[in-house]
Amino acid sequence: MPPESSYDIKYFKVEWPVPGVAHVEINRPEKYNAFNPDMWHGMPKIFDRLSEDPNVRCIVLSGNGEKAFCAGLDVQSASTAGPVSQPDPKLDFARRSWAIRRHVYDYQNTVNAIERCEKPTIILLHGICFGAAIDMATAADIRYCTKDAKLCVKEVDVGLAADVGTLTRLPKIGVSYSWAKEIVYTARVFDGEEALQVGFASRNFKGKDELMKAGVELATFIASKSPVAVQSSKALLDFSRDRPIEDGLRYTASWNAAMVQAEDVTKAMMSGVRKTKPTFEKL
Amino acid sequence: MPPESSYDIKYFKVEWPVPGVAHVEINRPEKYNAFNPDMWHGMPKIFDRLSEDPNVRCIVLSGNGEKAFCAGLDVQSASTAGPVSQPDPKLDFARRSWAIRRHVYDYQNTVNAIERCEKPTIILLHGICFGAAIDMATAADIRYCTKDAKLCVKEVDVGLAADVGTLTRLPKIGVSYSWAKEIVYTARVFDGEEALQVGFASRNFKGKDELMKAGVELATFIASKSPVAVQSSKALLDFSRDRPIEDGLRYTASWNAAMVQAEDVTKAMMSGVRKTKPTFEKL
Amino acid sequence: MPPESSYDIKYFKVEWPVPGVAHVEINRPEKYNAFNPDMWHGMPKIFDRLSEDPNVRCIVLSGNGEKAFCAGLDVQSASTAGPVSQPDPKLDFARRSWAIRRHVYDYQNTVNAIERCEKPTIILLHGICFGAAIDMATAADIRYCTKDAKLCVKEVDVGLAADVGTLTRLPKIGVSYSWAKEIVYTARVFDGEEALQVGFASRNFKGKDELMKAGVELATFIASKSPVAVQSSKALLDFSRDRPIEDGLRYTASWNAAMVQAEDVTKAMMSGVRKTKPTFEKL
Amino acid sequence: MPPESSYDIKYFKVEWPVPGVAHVEINRPEKYNAFNPDMWHGMPKIFDRLSEDPNVRCIVLSGNGEKAFCAGLDVQSASTAGPVSQPDPKLDFARRSWAIRRHVYDYQNTVNAIERCEKPTIILLHGICFGAAIDMATAADIRYCTKDAKLCVKEVDVGLAADVGTLTRLPKIGVSYSWAKEIVYTARVFDGEEALQVGFASRNFKGKDELMKAGVELATFIASKSPVAVQSSKALLDFSRDRPIEDGLRYTASWNAAMVQAEDVTKAMMSGVRKTKPTFEKL
Amino acid sequence: MPPESSYDIKYFKVEWPVPGVAHVEINRPEKYNAFNPDMWHGMPKIFDRLSEDPNVRCIVLSGNGEKAFCAGLDVQSASTAGPVSQPDPKLDFARRSWAIRRHVYDYQNTVNAIERCEKPTIILLHGICFGAAIDMATAADIRYCTKDAKLCVKEVDVGLAADVGTLTRLPKIGVSYSWAKEIVYTARVFDGEEALQVGFASRNFKGKDELMKAGVELATFIASKSPVAVQSSKALLDFSRDRPIEDGLRYTASWNAAMVQAEDVTKAMMSGVRKTKPTFEKL
Amino acid sequence: MPPESSYDIKYFKVEWPVPGVAHVEINRPEKYNAFNPDMWHGMPKIFDRLSEDPNVRCIVLSGNGEKAFCAGLDVQSASTAGPVSQPDPKLDFARRSWAIRRHVYDYQNTVNAIERCEKPTIILLHGICFGAAIDMATAADIRYCTKDAKLCVKEVDVGLAADVGTLTRLPKIGVSYSWAKEIVYTARVFDGEEALQVGFASRNFKGKDELMKAGVELATFIASKSPVAVQSSKALLDFSRDRPIEDGLRYTASWNAAMVQAEDVTKAMMSGVRKTKPTFEKL
Repeated sequence: MPPESSYDIKYFKVEWPVPGVAHVEINRPEKYNAFNPDMWHGMPKIFDRLSEDPNVRCIVLSGNGEKAFCAGLDVQSASTAGPVSQPDPKLDFARRSWAIRRHVYDYQNTVNAIERCEKPTIILLHGICFGAAIDMATAADIRYCTKDAKLCVKEVDVGLAADVGTLTRLPKIGVSYSWAKEIVYTARVFDGEEALQVGFASRNFKGKDELMKAGVELATFIASKSPVAVQSSKALLDFSRDRPIEDGLRYTASWNAAMVQAEDVTKAMMSGVRKTKPTFEKL
Repeated sequence: MPPESSYDIKYFKVEWPVPGVAHVEINRPEKYNAFNPDMWHGMPKIFDRLSEDPNVRCIVLSGNGEKAFCAGLDVQSASTAGPVSQPDPKLDFARRSWAIRRHVYDYQNTVNAIERCEKPTIILLHGICFGAAIDMATAADIRYCTKDAKLCVKEVDVGLAADVGTLTRLPKIGVSYSWAKEIVYTARVFDGEEALQVGFASRNFKGKDELMKAGVELATFIASKSPVAVQSSKALLDFSRDRPIEDGLRYTASWNAAMVQAEDVTKAMMSGVRKTKPTFEKL
Repeated sequence: MPPESSYDIKYFKVEWPVPGVAHVEINRPEKYNAFNPDMWHGMPKIFDRLSEDPNVRCIVLSGNGEKAFCAGLDVQSASTAGPVSQPDPKLDFARRSWAIRRHVYDYQNTVNAIERCEKPTIILLHGICFGAAIDMATAADIRYCTKDAKLCVKEVDVGLAADVGTLTRLPKIGVSYSWAKEIVYTARVFDGEEALQVGFASRNFKGKDELMKAGVELATFIASKSPVAVQSSKALLDFSRDRPIEDGLRYTASWNAAMVQAEDVTKAMMSGVRKTKPTFEKL
Repeated sequence: MPPESSYDIKYFKVEWPVPGVAHVEINRPEKYNAFNPDMWHGMPKIFDRLSEDPNVRCIVLSGNGEKAFCAGLDVQSASTAGPVSQPDPKLDFARRSWAIRRHVYDYQNTVNAIERCEKPTIILLHGICFGAAIDMATAADIRYCTKDAKLCVKEVDVGLAADVGTLTRLPKIGVSYSWAKEIVYTARVFDGEEALQVGFASRNFKGKDELMKAGVELATFIASKSPVAVQSSKALLDFSRDRPIEDGLRYTASWNAAMVQAEDVTKAMMSGVRKTKPTFEKL
Repeated sequence: MPPESSYDIKYFKVEWPVPGVAHVEINRPEKYNAFNPDMWHGMPKIFDRLSEDPNVRCIVLSGNGEKAFCAGLDVQSASTAGPVSQPDPKLDFARRSWAIRRHVYDYQNTVNAIERCEKPTIILLHGICFGAAIDMATAADIRYCTKDAKLCVKEVDVGLAADVGTLTRLPKIGVSYSWAKEIVYTARVFDGEEALQVGFASRNFKGKDELMKAGVELATFIASKSPVAVQSSKALLDFSRDRPIEDGLRYTASWNAAMVQAEDVTKAMMSGVRKTKPTFEKL
Repeated sequence: MPPESSYDIKYFKVEWPVPGVAHVEINRPEKYNAFNPDMWHGMPKIFDRLSEDPNVRCIVLSGNGEKAFCAGLDVQSASTAGPVSQPDPKLDFARRSWAIRRHVYDYQNTVNAIERCEKPTIILLHGICFGAAIDMATAADIRYCTKDAKLCVKEVDVGLAADVGTLTRLPKIGVSYSWAKEIVYTARVFDGEEALQVGFASRNFKGKDELMKAGVELATFIASKSPVAVQSSKALLDFSRDRPIEDGLRYTASWNAAMVQAEDVTKAMMSGVRKTKPTFEKL
């Protein structure tokens, strides 16, 4: 297990409930885990490290505290700095826009880090899950939530279109497009029951304790599988999602031409024959 | 509010239940609102105007009368003119096909007008919703229906594949692809209960009155939001639906680089702080 | 009806329950219909013939025996030959990979034959449906299953990522992406109830008898429709699924410019007027 | 031949040098044929009509006067109206941007009309060809020029990136990308000799007279060919240019499935046998 | 070297000028090597075998006789059979179109076989190179020609648009798009000098003898290189040509992750150090 | 002008010949500027900084010394470390491949930094330009070379396919595809004369001095233009190159909706009227 210090980033806790499972906790409960600039820049560092850390096989992402997974952008800190609220008065409009575009790329990068992370991420949603919370949720692999979670694509209520990933990924996660547009245009809150029913989440739970337990159990189970198989599956599903069948198949064949030569295949088959539980090397 | 006359197109009524909301009614109830050539050409004019009309923030589309939202193509008028049923006998097959292709582009254009309209459109489906009704429904943003609505991708029953949009959009609205193919190949009727259950619609209602009420309420609510935020969301969702994540994100960043400088953002934030209801400028 | 002999391929039975309907049965019940090399190479031959056979209008695909639709790859035969388990020792790693890539293309080709087949295919899933069964299911048009079917994306449990089509098509069949990743990463079994609920299947049934009956009935019904209409619909839905709306519409218009000149359209309209049942020519 | 009046649009002349050939002349020589708002809105009307006019088989586009094909945007008229130079002072920055985006779409539409026109267009470039001239040139099918034509992607010199088509189409017309970026970033003038050498144009000529003569001759020659063959070729080349080989081939097969049944094929073959010159029906 | 008999296909000769080089000769000189149905179906068989034949490293494709590489479709045989010239009179127009579409796919398949062949193909163009000759040329990897070769995209002259590959591939082979449209719309002949100048061919030669000699020399040289390197390059160039940079890079990385582990890399590096000529294993 | 120290990266020199122009020099002349791991990791740091440095408007990239721009990968250092030549012996083949894929992404990242850099880059090629040199050249905006430069896609000669960008970008820079495949499959050297003739480079020069002078002059000229205009042009050309015309136009319109509100437009127009030379603000 890696020294925790290497993941020592302000406002986040990284723990190791079992070998192979990293539990990333957003840790600013006094502010409902709202994201300030430190957090926007800190999170990709964590996920980029987890991505290449051979000790990690599956990641659980949750929010510290009872109230909220994440209340979104920290409006207070956002309103005192940054090109949106405090544009440089010397800049003309086009140059302000240029600065904002760079800024949006920056924030998108935070969320992309979850998707481009080689390891699967299970996001555990409880309490308030607004704005950036949905950006992160749509970028994660698996969404679990509490039944009473309060989810909201909040951006329309602050006068703008969500630009950090939600609008890009919502049409691709297998939910009714009519429902997706309804929750985006109205910024209405939907709870964990509705999230399950429409397929936004794949399971829901009574309270945060049950949620956390189930999340870690799922992660532990996934971590027991061949990391070559699991991580390849993530890469191939996400590549194929965006491209024609033909391209997905060809990419998959090239990928697996090497990957099926992993000793994991032999190990798994042997274990199947011998009815034993295989152990797989790190990746 | 614009003079109604400017939307005075035969077989359609455009009304303004509340400021910002346009209610477009297909108005040929004596023929179950079946579409004749006047209607195919009239409807894009309405939606193209609504698209740029600053008085409009959200659109409701419904069918006049108790029996039907729309029974599809008016077979009677279709059988007496047009390149399909009355091809010019002097033309060889290839030239007839050329004429038909132009004709199909024309009809596709009617339906595309709903999708390319900058303002969100809520379609309210009741009674008979056959053929062209589904073309329009899949192009609209939000689908609501009565529980006893009778919906049908009818084209296979008239010996052809749906070519005005249904087959292109059905695979992209977040419904089971197995279900979609079943209803297409069989041309079987499905009701509003099934429509909700599979995610074709996002809500359903007891009867037309409830449906209309809910549709106008939703439109009113959406019209109270920042039009910069709502219309941007529509543009970005639809662009992203068809393209890789990477492209969706880059387009979004370029779009919002200008849009987040709307005064709507400041207004919305101020209102949040002061607990007042913001009013947004037209767009 | 074609002589059955022309579809005389080892390990498959092709029967004609009613005119126009081909029933392809995987016929190796003593091995749970697991696929050996003969079957991988035989199946595309059947579907490529069915695709152009004018006597065929709809296909039902099922597995012989009570226990399984298909248990996946026949591990025993796979472990004694082929570039994965028995690589040529004279080859370096890159050349082995090259051989495997060709091999994967080969197996993908088996499954693609179902999708590229011009005629719609209804897959009837019962009992054990593992690995290759899901590859075939995602490539079929319509998925029906028994309530107690045991479905599983098994590949992670044998140490590899599914590379014959499942990972490429799962993100495109209208199921929750969170659910899809969960069943892929865990290789957990889901039953026919869950398959219906998430939209993987569009109907489910008490037992195999009911399933077979419903499958053949649906196929018979589809076979009574215009083959021009049905087969065009399949081609246009699948083309559009992978491409922007704009491309789908243009392709559709070019396709139908010829197809709507089928006599099927006149026949269907006449029958509508006269309340008779039309009969359509072969295709 | 159509009555010339039907193409009676201010600042343009449409003439018919020979049957089947339309000669569109930009007709504002006193201003170097610079485009004012009337012209931006007039030109698509002309090309959309030519596109469906069965009397037209090939189009020649040139500029009246000795000095210029077109000097680009009419800066004077542009500076007194329009959302760029005279933004509505009541609008916030985002709403101004929204108005500009609509405005750019409008201007792009002018240029797209040349590309989406079903009939091939030969553009004849002489004298000054700045800004909008290049937008039009890259959208035309065939580029001819005089040796001393002065061509320039002028936009960088007025402080903006070309947004009406040049930057989108330059990477796709088969010229060195290094050269393309050089002329864009520097806004330097290149002459007709260079245009030919890099493949921007496919022929060049001593002076305007020779150019006009050659352009009309080429158009006359193309107009003598089967319009089904020529117009199909345009449609298929342009569709394929932007898409993978696989998509281009499938679209082509669907298109030609109808088109090869034109009597033009029989006529052309017969003429080949009999050594006569075929005459083809209008399209 | 494989027994020549295994490539014994009517109207083609396959010879082995040097080990590793296959010389495919179109062998119907008495008819200017025009393609009849036997040849359309025979050629993909040859190239699909060459593709997987480990004895083959590079292919030269030429036409027997002094007069022609290939005069295109054999009009005589085409006019006595096939769905275009001899449609089944019982079929309605749509069913004829369906038959033609299948037929076009068939012919496209002939030409695709050159492109999908894993081994690079050098096409040697001399004499008459009409119609199908250009389809093959655009699908080959490297085009060489004699200076007096007569090349022509002939299809417009027979009343149809080229549908076997030329229109799809011409926009992608790095020639001026203005020139490409000119030669397509006019069906004019261009010679080998022009072919070189515009980049259609990369070299030209005085006569057929010089051409053949240079072609075989180039093939011999390519055959001396690592087949892993050469064949990978073909696969990666063609995949990337049709897709965004991002996709090309990712596919390349997955492909090479296995391929750079070939012993060819070590061998090549060693030879570089020792100044010897490496010999590479078959592929 | 920024302190040079901030670009103080080993093996590179960054100088400022004139305000706004950064001259990046590869500085390992004793090894023909061959790239070792320090350089692969250092170069993206430089370009990512230049990308956002407001003092920079145009970049010139050259190689120090008389002999070479860059001789490619430093084989010596490559052969003593890294997953290709020194794979971890404990890893199975699949895990080695995984490590190599990460490694290739890493190297691709070096080259991508040139393309994603917001500022245009002029690459000045002299002497030996092998392997990685071509990767960099195809990623740069403008290619200039000496007439006697020796260019080579060298990878096939070291037994592998080029995987750092050359094969992905060569089909997109507007050179004959036949020529491109020829130089890739043969790894033959082409000189600066040929590079100009085929359009790989857009200008060539007698010797390094002339080359350097011309490069800096061009950069100086570009730096005198509006940075909003130039940098927008780069972004829009590269986005459009990979996507359909339709997408390129929409992205461009969204981008420019903000950018044309730069004061650069007014300044440029005023200067045009007053015949003065405008000065533009940094970006």
